[in-house]
Amino acid sequence: MSHSNRRWFLRLGAAFGAALTACKQKAVVEEIEPSSLGKPISAYGERSQYEQAKRLLMPAGLGKSPEIGSTRTPLQDTYGIITPSSLHFERHHAGVPQIDPATHKLLIHGMVERPLILTMADIHRLPSVSRIHFVECSGNGSTEWGEKNAPDAQRSHGMAACSEWTGVPLSILLAEVGVKPGASWLVAEGADACRMARSIPLKKANDDVLLAFGQNGEALRPEQGYPLRLIIPGWEGNTNVKWLRRIRLVVEPDMTKDETSKYTDLMPDGTARQFTFEVEAKSVITFPSGGQKLSGPGMYEITGLAWSGRGRVDRVEVSTDGGETWQTARIDEPRLRIAFSRFRLPWKWDGQPVTLQSRCTDETGYVQPTREALIAARGMNSNYHNNAIKIWKVSADGAVSNA
Amino acid sequence: MSHSNRRWFLRLGAAFGAALTACKQKAVVEEIEPSSLGKPISAYGERSQYEQAKRLLMPAGLGKSPEIGSTRTPLQDTYGIITPSSLHFERHHAGVPQIDPATHKLLIHGMVERPLILTMADIHRLPSVSRIHFVECSGNGSTEWGEKNAPDAQRSHGMAACSEWTGVPLSILLAEVGVKPGASWLVAEGADACRMARSIPLKKANDDVLLAFGQNGEALRPEQGYPLRLIIPGWEGNTNVKWLRRIRLVVEPDMTKDETSKYTDLMPDGTARQFTFEVEAKSVITFPSGGQKLSGPGMYEITGLAWSGRGRVDRVEVSTDGGETWQTARIDEPRLRIAFSRFRLPWKWDGQPVTLQSRCTDETGYVQPTREALIAARGMNSNYHNNAIKIWKVSADGAVSNA
Repeated sequence: MSHSNRRWFLRLGAAFGAALTACKQKAVVEEIEPSSLGKPISAYGERSQYEQAKRLLMPAGLGKSPEIGSTRTPLQDTYGIITPSSLHFERHHAGVPQIDPATHKLLIHGMVERPLILTMADIHRLPSVSRIHFVECSGNGSTEWGEKNAPDAQRSHGMAACSEWTGVPLSILLAEVGVKPGASWLVAEGADACRMARSIPLKKANDDVLLAFGQNGEALRPEQGYPLRLIIPGWEGNTNVKWLRRIRLVVEPDMTKDETSKYTDLMPDGTARQFTFEVEAKSVITFPSGGQKLSGPGMYEITGLAWSGRGRVDRVEVSTDGGETWQTARIDEPRLRIAFSRFRLPWKWDGQPVTLQSRCTDETGYVQPTREALIAARGMNSNYHNNAIKIWKVSADGAVSNA
Repeated sequence: MSHSNRRWFLRLGAAFGAALTACKQKAVVEEIEPSSLGKPISAYGERSQYEQAKRLLMPAGLGKSPEIGSTRTPLQDTYGIITPSSLHFERHHAGVPQIDPATHKLLIHGMVERPLILTMADIHRLPSVSRIHFVECSGNGSTEWGEKNAPDAQRSHGMAACSEWTGVPLSILLAEVGVKPGASWLVAEGADACRMARSIPLKKANDDVLLAFGQNGEALRPEQGYPLRLIIPGWEGNTNVKWLRRIRLVVEPDMTKDETSKYTDLMPDGTARQFTFEVEAKSVITFPSGGQKLSGPGMYEITGLAWSGRGRVDRVEVSTDGGETWQTARIDEPRLRIAFSRFRLPWKWDGQPVTLQSRCTDETGYVQPTREALIAARGMNSNYHNNAIKIWKVSADGAVSNA
């Protein structure tokens, strides 16, 4: 392990830490002396009472149908690349079904030689694989098109999360049922009351799609599709159908309500982009970010998350001078395909007002665009697929806010 | 994605799945039709009511001091390589302190130029890094020396778990305080009432040790040392001091009670091995494993976990014929240093009694030993560091038990 910033403290500012004279050490040791037994062991642990990070409802205030809504992951309160399952963002169209896995079934039918119905026990018996992937709602960043009124990283970028998913490669089941000639799409349908359904090209389904039953080492959480969901690596969250109950092989897309009235991008000329599946390279600084406050001039570590639906994150650059110059951030290993990458850069704040922004380049060479470039290409009528560079403003008093 | 075992079903046995005639499909679709709205969004999610995996107290039954004990991770119920924080094994000597991070302090003193005391806010401001590492109690496998009475993988191997840890490299702080010439160890002390303390060589401390505050994306869990612990990659769990409050630089080991009366290996000649820090290569099959039952002859995927404190797992081999022949298992990517590796191997059970065992080789070329070889080298007086090959027995009725 090498760190270029040895003697970090000396630059942190005078208020940092507390140097001790030898005679004071004894007093300090006594001050931190433990005095009583702790709590006993437990069967299923919980977080500390002092930890209060939570998912936030957006927009605030549930309407007449509290089952239709979305929550954001508090990205500014997470560490590393794994998102705690309890804080994984939600997007539901008819609430969270409470499914008994003993009775759940998956039907595979349509243009297949041998239609099949499978129990969860059947699925668990098949070969499986575990992989770390992010999932991002294509509506993530919808606050960033217009007035940019999201006050923090949770509200601006919190519909993205990253988990270790475990499941059966869909290709195994497609080989098993025998796809008939002419079928080139499938329609995946959830067991939620609204029958959420999306059309997926067969080519992707045979590539790297998982029928996932595991998340971060245990069963999927109910909000994430328990007991079975699709994981379609790198594709907009909505296609990763949760509570999966049915896969139907078809000639062409089904044009479900979820891919016509929703999840299309309205362009300036009045046409709509459809089936814009792939998540493009994106990043956000989570510290310092909106709502946080720096305690004074000195050294800090800027950190954040970067991801791309097209593969590995190749580079993250950070600018602390309004985009004039860019420095390459360090990225924690391992850098995984279609997963969050955690970037970090030491930064000395001189106490003057400043803006901070990050720019991600993925392994295909694609570079995250500015907001201006994105709007020039797509206009401002679309709610979806906003992957623009995010800028935070640091005021002289250390307060961080939307720029 | 390539899978050598296409047409898996045909070999699974007649009872697998259910083929459907076209006219039956409509009935099945109606049967699985959703009928009602689900639960609304939530701030901090919980697992499904149908999931009941839990940590188990070992040995069963708390004594007069329920704060002294250990629980095991249900390895046979976990997926992938990340252990859910709620199921991470515990080992406490004085219960779980309930520490307010706002008042917690870390003192670094002893043979240093500039003794320091740091708050958690100070520590959070320093550069940090996230890495996926296992932690294993050196007592894991203590059931395997003698009568091998652990009926399942949880009780035989469940004092191992793997998390993404986030923290500050200890090397940064050691550079900051200025270690005096002559100091070559440090003593790390916890804030539990028993003052758990271990001596660590300075060389390791300057290599890859973390002052960790993050676990699987959120703050450390209280049972795992909240708000601050050592992560000493690849070294026996007990050295990864939890609730860390004090680091003292010293000339030689402190000979604490935790490294003299405990955590030493009593050898056949009456001497004891001490400071046997490094976890040697080890593996265990988690399916099929003790307490589980196969539903009948046919295809299964054997799966399990392998790890080494010395680096990457290079190879896992599985024998299904009493050790006569060995097949190389597939290992999920990425294969990380000093982390769990998940291995998998397709297997056709013919319905006859059989034994199953796995053997791990790490990147140094070290091969996991048989129980006989381990006992020949170390005798049977030691509770610690049992990394022998684990054998499960499958009976003709499909029941799996200790061999």
